[in-house]
Amino acid sequence: MNIKPRFIALLMALAVLVGAAGSYIGIEYFANNEGEQSQSEQLANAGKNAENFGSLTEEEQKKFIEDMTGNGDLEKVAQAYNVIKENYVEEVDKKQLVEGAIQGMLDTLEDPYSVYMDQETMKQFNQSIESSFEGIGAEVSMVNDKVTIVAPIKGSPAEKAGLKPNDQILKVDGESVEGLDLYEAVLKIRGEKGTEVTLQVDRPGVSDPLNIEIVRDDIPLETVYTDTKEVDGKKVGVIEITSFSEKTSDEFHKALQKLESDGMEGLVIDVRGNPGGLFTDVQEILKEFITDEKPIVQVEDRKGEKSKYFSERTEKKEYPITVLMDEGSASASEILAATMNEAGGYDLVGTKSFGKGTVQQAIPMGDGSTIKLTLFKWLTPDGNWIHEKGIEPTVKVKQPAYFYTNPVEIEDSLKRNDNSDKIKNVQEMLKGLGYDPGRTDGYYSKETEAAVEAFQSDSGLEATGQVDEKTGGKLEEKIVEEVRDEENDRQMEKALEILFE
Amino acid sequence: MNIKPRFIALLMALAVLVGAAGSYIGIEYFANNEGEQSQSEQLANAGKNAENFGSLTEEEQKKFIEDMTGNGDLEKVAQAYNVIKENYVEEVDKKQLVEGAIQGMLDTLEDPYSVYMDQETMKQFNQSIESSFEGIGAEVSMVNDKVTIVAPIKGSPAEKAGLKPNDQILKVDGESVEGLDLYEAVLKIRGEKGTEVTLQVDRPGVSDPLNIEIVRDDIPLETVYTDTKEVDGKKVGVIEITSFSEKTSDEFHKALQKLESDGMEGLVIDVRGNPGGLFTDVQEILKEFITDEKPIVQVEDRKGEKSKYFSERTEKKEYPITVLMDEGSASASEILAATMNEAGGYDLVGTKSFGKGTVQQAIPMGDGSTIKLTLFKWLTPDGNWIHEKGIEPTVKVKQPAYFYTNPVEIEDSLKRNDNSDKIKNVQEMLKGLGYDPGRTDGYYSKETEAAVEAFQSDSGLEATGQVDEKTGGKLEEKIVEEVRDEENDRQMEKALEILFE
Repeated sequence: MNIKPRFIALLMALAVLVGAAGSYIGIEYFANNEGEQSQSEQLANAGKNAENFGSLTEEEQKKFIEDMTGNGDLEKVAQAYNVIKENYVEEVDKKQLVEGAIQGMLDTLEDPYSVYMDQETMKQFNQSIESSFEGIGAEVSMVNDKVTIVAPIKGSPAEKAGLKPNDQILKVDGESVEGLDLYEAVLKIRGEKGTEVTLQVDRPGVSDPLNIEIVRDDIPLETVYTDTKEVDGKKVGVIEITSFSEKTSDEFHKALQKLESDGMEGLVIDVRGNPGGLFTDVQEILKEFITDEKPIVQVEDRKGEKSKYFSERTEKKEYPITVLMDEGSASASEILAATMNEAGGYDLVGTKSFGKGTVQQAIPMGDGSTIKLTLFKWLTPDGNWIHEKGIEPTVKVKQPAYFYTNPVEIEDSLKRNDNSDKIKNVQEMLKGLGYDPGRTDGYYSKETEAAVEAFQSDSGLEATGQVDEKTGGKLEEKIVEEVRDEENDRQMEKALEILFE
Repeated sequence: MNIKPRFIALLMALAVLVGAAGSYIGIEYFANNEGEQSQSEQLANAGKNAENFGSLTEEEQKKFIEDMTGNGDLEKVAQAYNVIKENYVEEVDKKQLVEGAIQGMLDTLEDPYSVYMDQETMKQFNQSIESSFEGIGAEVSMVNDKVTIVAPIKGSPAEKAGLKPNDQILKVDGESVEGLDLYEAVLKIRGEKGTEVTLQVDRPGVSDPLNIEIVRDDIPLETVYTDTKEVDGKKVGVIEITSFSEKTSDEFHKALQKLESDGMEGLVIDVRGNPGGLFTDVQEILKEFITDEKPIVQVEDRKGEKSKYFSERTEKKEYPITVLMDEGSASASEILAATMNEAGGYDLVGTKSFGKGTVQQAIPMGDGSTIKLTLFKWLTPDGNWIHEKGIEPTVKVKQPAYFYTNPVEIEDSLKRNDNSDKIKNVQEMLKGLGYDPGRTDGYYSKETEAAVEAFQSDSGLEATGQVDEKTGGKLEEKIVEEVRDEENDRQMEKALEILFE
C-alpha cells in the first residue's frame, strides 16, 4: 500500500474513466474474476439473450431475430430506412443509418447512462483497458446534451490545468463536440502521453467560454490511498477511494487491515470526487462495516421486484467512522455513503452527492460494438431511490468559497469602472485570499481597486490597481496554493472533529 | 386585394407555419392543384417508391421491405431493439422505440429540415390545414437542438407579446421542450383562440430566461399585401409577401396587375421575415419579372445533376424594382431575392438573409405518419448554393438599434450602482429613445440615472431615477411605438430612395 502523495498523480479505473459516472455489474469482457462473474450472471439474467447473442452462430442469430420480430414491429423502421437511403439529397452511409437507429432507440429512454458504443469506439476502449491509460484524467457525463465534467481526477493533468466539476466541454482542439455522444467526445479528448489538447469549456457563472490547454499524461490505475492523522492524541486512519474498480476492494481490505493492526482508533473514508465503478466492489467494502440487520443495498428490476444483499457480519467495528463525500461522489460512492449512514449509523460529512441510482450492463452486440444499458435501480438499505436527488450529508460542510473560483484569462487589463464577469471572478478570488473587493458583482469599484493594489504589494508586483495578465496569473497561483493546502480542507477537518464526539 | 393594415393581424400559410422555414415541392395531400402536382411528380421521381408505399397492400409492402432489406442491413437494429425492449430497467413502449429509430436515422443526416412527424402530430397538422389556424403566429426552426423563433408573424399575438427572431424556446407553460422535436414543440405551443400560453425563452445577449405570456388567436391565411407610396411625385407600388402558399402567386399576379393598370412607376417587393413556402409558387412569381436568358432557379439532385427552370418572358418590366429582405427571409424568399438580383439585376435592400438552400418533400409512411425529407438543393441562377450562408444585400441597411432591444421584466427596482444585464437592456432602450445613459454595459452610472430621470419627466412619471415596473413598462411601450412607426422603417426608406437612382 502506498502512502498517497496528496495532489500528485492519482489513479483511476478505466471503466469508470471512459463511461459516465457509473455503477456497473461486473462486466464479463472486463473482469475474468470468478466471484464477480457469478454475481454478475445472477444479476443479469434478464440480459441473457442479448448477452449471448454475440456467441450464437449467424444462423442462430437470424433465427433469434425472426423470433423476436415476427410481429412486424420493425417494418416501419425498414420502410423509413429505405425512404431515407434512396431519396435523401446526399448519399447516405448504411452503417450510419443503422447506428443512428440504435442511438435513436436509446435516446427515447431519456437515460444518459444508456448509450451505444460503435466498433471503433469499443476497439479503442478495449485497447486502453489493457495498458495504462493515457489521457487527461477527467470523469465526464452527458448532462442536458452537453459533455460535462463530473470530476477531474486529483493530481491529473485535467485538475492541474484547472478543469472543474460541471464544466461543459464545447470544443476539443477547436472542433465542436456538439452532436457527438459521450464516447465519441471522450475519444477526441484522449490521446498519447505528452501531446497537448485544448478544451473550450463553458463554466456555470462565467459568460465567455474558457480555453484550457492540457498536456496528456499516464493515468495509472490505483484507487485506494491511505493516510494517518492524530486527533486529540488518537490515531485516525484515512482511506480515500478514488473509484471502484477490479482491485479496489482487495486494496481496501489490505489498507484497512494494516491500519487496524497499527492500532487505529478511528476511520475516515473519503469518497469525494469518486464517480463510482463496479457494483460488486462497493458491496465487498461495505461488508467490512455493515451488520446483517439491514441490507447493504437493494436492487430493483423492471418488474419492480427487489433483491436485497446482506453482509454476514454480526458486530460493528469498535472504532468510530465518518464518510466524506461531495457533489462529485456518484453511483457506487453513493451506495457507500447511503449504506454507511442508513445501515451503519455513521455520519456523512461534506456536500450533497451527485445522484445516480441506476446500474448499467455493457451488452456486446457481437460485431465489436456494445450497448451499455441501464438494467436496474439500486435502492438504499431503507429502500430509497436517490436518482437525480443525491444524498444529503448529515453534517453539511462546504469548502472555503475560493475552492469554487475559476482561472482567469486576461486579455485587456481590467481596471476601475470596468464591468464584466471576469471582474466578478477576480473579486471572488481576492475575497478568498483575504482582500476585501467591496463588491463581487463584476463592477470594478474603488474598493476593488484598493484590494488589487494591496494584493499586488503583498505579491511583489507593481501596485497599479489594474489586473493585467501577470496579476491574474498570480491570483490563480495563490488560489491554487490555498486549495492544495491540506490545512484548508474544511470538510476533512470537520470529519476528524466529529469522529470522537 | 386588401390594403394591408400594417401591424394588424397578418397572414401565414400553414405549411410554413408548422414546418421549419421551408421550400416545399407541391405536397400532394396539401394541394390538389394539377399543375403543381405534375411538377412535383417530375421532381420527386426519386421518392416514388416511398411515396406510393402507403397505397400498397400489406402483402406488397412486405415484399417491398424484403426486397430492400434482404441484405440484412437492419438485423443489428432488430438485435438492439430486442436488447432494449427485453432488458431496460423500465417497460419500453414498442412504438416509442420504432419512432426513436426513425428519428435516430434522420438525426444522422444532421439536417434540421429532415424530420419525422408521428401519427398524432400529422393528425393535428392536417386538421389545422383545413380550417383557419389558431395559435400564436410564430415561425420556428430547430437551431442547435433548440426550438428557435425564425420570425414572429407581423401583427400576430407572438409579435405583440414581444417574441423576437432567434429567441430559443425553453419551456411551454412551465414544461421543458428539451428533447422534443420541432413538431412536438409546436403542438404544445398551439391551441385554441383565446387561451393563454407562457413561453420561457432564452434570448441571445440576455442572461436570464424571459417569460412571455401570449394569448392565442386566429392566424388567417393571407400572404400578399399591397400598398402605394409616392416618391418625388412618382407612384410606387409595394407588395409584401409574408409566405409562399397555395394561393400566393395568384394573389401576387392580381395585385401586380392592379398596380400596373393604376399606373405604377416603380415597385418594391418586400419579403422581410418571410420564411418561405412552396417552391412552385415563388417560380410563378419570378416568371413575371425574369427573362429567358438565365434560369429562374436550378435544382440539384443527389447525383449532382442539375435541372434548370426558365421563364418564357423576353422583356424586362419597364419600371424599376427593389427587393427588401432581412435575416428572417428564408428559403423561397431567398430564391426570390437571389434571382431578382442575379438574373434581373435588381437591388436587394436590408440585411443578410437566413440561408436555407434545400427543398423538402413530405413522404407519407402509410400509417398517418410522415417523413419530411430533404430531396434537393436549389441553386441560384448563377449556380451558387447559399445554404447556411445567406444572401448579402446589395444595399445593406439595418433598422435603428432599438428595433433589436428586448422587453424588460422588472422585479426589484433597478438603481444607481446596480449592475446587471437588465440594466444593459434598459440603457440600450434609453439610447434608442434619444436619452444618453452614458454607458450600455449594465452598470447603472450617474449618467444612466440622469437619463432615467429625464425619460420619467417626459413620460409623466415621478422622476425617481430608478427603473421600477412602471418605468420599465413605459420604456417598452415607447420602444414598441417607435418600432411600429412606419416613419422609422429605414430599410423601406432606402428601398424607395434608390428605386429611381
